[in-house]
Amino acid sequence: MSTADLSAIYRDYIACLNRQDWSELGRFVAPDVRHNGRAFGLAGYRAMLERDFATIPDLAFDIRLLVTEPPHVAALLGFRCSPRGTFLGLPVEGRTVTFTENVFYTFRDATIVDVRSIIDRGAIEEQIRDASHPA
Amino acid sequence: MSTADLSAIYRDYIACLNRQDWSELGRFVAPDVRHNGRAFGLAGYRAMLERDFATIPDLAFDIRLLVTEPPHVAALLGFRCSPRGTFLGLPVEGRTVTFTENVFYTFRDATIVDVRSIIDRGAIEEQIRDASHPA
Repeated sequence: MSTADLSAIYRDYIACLNRQDWSELGRFVAPDVRHNGRAFGLAGYRAMLERDFATIPDLAFDIRLLVTEPPHVAALLGFRCSPRGTFLGLPVEGRTVTFTENVFYTFRDATIVDVRSIIDRGAIEEQIRDASHPA
Repeated sequence: MSTADLSAIYRDYIACLNRQDWSELGRFVAPDVRHNGRAFGLAGYRAMLERDFATIPDLAFDIRLLVTEPPHVAALLGFRCSPRGTFLGLPVEGRTVTFTENVFYTFRDATIVDVRSIIDRGAIEEQIRDASHPA
């Protein structure tokens, strides 16, 4: 698979997430997908995404930087959204926060088999702290 | 610059960090380098690394996954080390912790001009919490 082809598949995957088209998710995600070392499988992966959109109704994935070297894709994703209640253990309570996620994917043929993601939780923590202590 | 050439330069950069060869750092890092949105410059970048090695005498950078698409490199770095005192705001106090860093680099010619890094601080937090509450 070429770099351009794999990048195009990844962009289609992100578009699929953004329209919450869960019936199409299996086109992009392998049945035996792993996420941060855990054997989620496709059903668990879909459940995670559905939970994310339930907690964050205005969730949208924005690709800020895409680095592709088959069979791997690395993406810097940007978010500006308003999680309800507690998000990543932080009491966001509907405030709008901005943060990034640096994430690596391993593909097998055209589907994702492994994901290693780190979210910049510290950035959210700072924004909540600043909001709690107005100057 | 080819993917293979840029990957080789990045591996040489990591080797330079691991032998703390600060006189060579300018071969890999541009005078106007930015780190997580801040205009560090080469001197500030070197100072950050020197502080890191002072806090973490057994610091070593281990490339777990390298994804190169010129002019970008994305690396999943692994660490197993024993930070003294407080590290990333956490009271590690010399305990040995393992964690990862997902980091994106932009190169201009053969030198790094931009770095966007997220460290998995949550992993360290968990290891410290577990250590404080032995089962």
